[in-house]
Amino acid sequence: MPPAANFSSFSALLRGPPPPTRRLLVAAAAARAHSTSGCSRARGGLPRFHSPSLPSSKGEVVRIQGDEFWHMTRVLRLGVNDRVELFDGAGALVEGSIQKVDKNGSDVELLENARSIAPQGIQWHVFAAFGTLKGGRADWLIEKCTELGACSVTPLLTERCHTIAENRVDRLQRLVLAAVKQCQRVHDMSLKAPIEIRDLPAIVSQSKLAFLASAGAPPVLSVLPKPSNEESGVLIIGPEGDFTDEEVNVLKAAGAVPVGLGPCRLRVETATISLLSALMLWSDAHHQEIQQCR
Amino acid sequence: MPPAANFSSFSALLRGPPPPTRRLLVAAAAARAHSTSGCSRARGGLPRFHSPSLPSSKGEVVRIQGDEFWHMTRVLRLGVNDRVELFDGAGALVEGSIQKVDKNGSDVELLENARSIAPQGIQWHVFAAFGTLKGGRADWLIEKCTELGACSVTPLLTERCHTIAENRVDRLQRLVLAAVKQCQRVHDMSLKAPIEIRDLPAIVSQSKLAFLASAGAPPVLSVLPKPSNEESGVLIIGPEGDFTDEEVNVLKAAGAVPVGLGPCRLRVETATISLLSALMLWSDAHHQEIQQCR
Repeated sequence: MPPAANFSSFSALLRGPPPPTRRLLVAAAAARAHSTSGCSRARGGLPRFHSPSLPSSKGEVVRIQGDEFWHMTRVLRLGVNDRVELFDGAGALVEGSIQKVDKNGSDVELLENARSIAPQGIQWHVFAAFGTLKGGRADWLIEKCTELGACSVTPLLTERCHTIAENRVDRLQRLVLAAVKQCQRVHDMSLKAPIEIRDLPAIVSQSKLAFLASAGAPPVLSVLPKPSNEESGVLIIGPEGDFTDEEVNVLKAAGAVPVGLGPCRLRVETATISLLSALMLWSDAHHQEIQQCR
Repeated sequence: MPPAANFSSFSALLRGPPPPTRRLLVAAAAARAHSTSGCSRARGGLPRFHSPSLPSSKGEVVRIQGDEFWHMTRVLRLGVNDRVELFDGAGALVEGSIQKVDKNGSDVELLENARSIAPQGIQWHVFAAFGTLKGGRADWLIEKCTELGACSVTPLLTERCHTIAENRVDRLQRLVLAAVKQCQRVHDMSLKAPIEIRDLPAIVSQSKLAFLASAGAPPVLSVLPKPSNEESGVLIIGPEGDFTDEEVNVLKAAGAVPVGLGPCRLRVETATISLLSALMLWSDAHHQEIQQCR
């Protein structure tokens, strides 16, 4: 039976290249053994599989089929008695053992009661006008938002980016699911229905943390407030061609803080990832401070 | 003659989709008028073209051919008397006017003496073990490092990532040039020859700022030093499967500071961009502080 898998190239595995080498597998498992529990890295390097519904008690059995079954048995070549972890995308995480493998699926028995993991850190909600991006850039934006732990991404329709294709939203939804599995997030990322920018100020007013990417605004790391117990926040990124002045003014009036992202000219997806990353790292630094104060 | 061009989708233009709409062009030009001069956004929205050699004095003429000529005349449809900006990737920037267009190229006359723009902010040198990344991920890493203003990127060969294909390096070099043009960086980004990790400690020892991405290390935003006058710094990102403990210890002994990038499991290219972005934003915030103190 092969050792624990390297999930770093999960989406590459979906396209069929050969499984990682044994040495990499062992190394990756060892590396993950040192990881924090915050974003649900696999404990002890167990391979992790998604199941939309999970039983809750030790001894119960869940059926794994479809893509996840294929990866379990054909790519990672796991079999009876191999230990795995299961997650449902809603916070449940549980260790299990493969009891049976047939040609359509496998049965996994829970080795413990399922745990419920609370979301950690500030929950960031991304509103970005990426509907008209071409060439895979929207895909990258979604994938990287998922990796960086965004809670949700909502396509934003603005005066200068007023469309997003319906089939694009469907396709991005499938990409979110693949990315959630690949980076082993215990909580799904929500890809929400597009909203018009006129509906955004109401959302901003309800949020104590709302940041608007704006060339020429004060640097983001200069304007972040002292750490607090805020549980969620909002990021807003405009389209190619930027927001209109009126759009910016309305968002500022609702409470959004314009923040600068450095001297370089950034594309929509780069600005999104740069801002999300900065906020995630800020939240991480302050979460650690709060932990140390206890 | 069309108004100033929207360069946000330059690489998309290279693949032949239709040019941006006039409204977007005007909007983009207006948006850029507010930009800072730090990373050389086109002043007043003039379209900018790369020429490997530039004359220095007002009145001199430079020949534009090849890809840049094609974009100037076929995509942006500029012609005689249109104003443009020229840059050489080594810091020179100058406004010019198109004097002549023939079927092989155009002649641009300098309207002023060429200015020499000094690099702004800390010059970040990225060392990342991305040689074995597949599926366009290395391309994305290079493109985003360019956009985020990295000074150089060096592929790192480590125990767990000990190869990079020769043709990949050539191809990435062309990608750097396209990205430099697209984001209108006045200074080229250097894509350097791959180095073995055993040669990295010597580079780290010579640098006062050296950061090593390391899961479980203290959060990066907690460990950044007070602002100083450092002109350059080093970022180090390991491969899929991570550095070995020995590699990490040697780099730490040479002065590299391990930094954590949050609770989520990040792929090599995401960790690179997240760390580079954080350092770039930190440098931007402190640069502004220093400016305000004057």
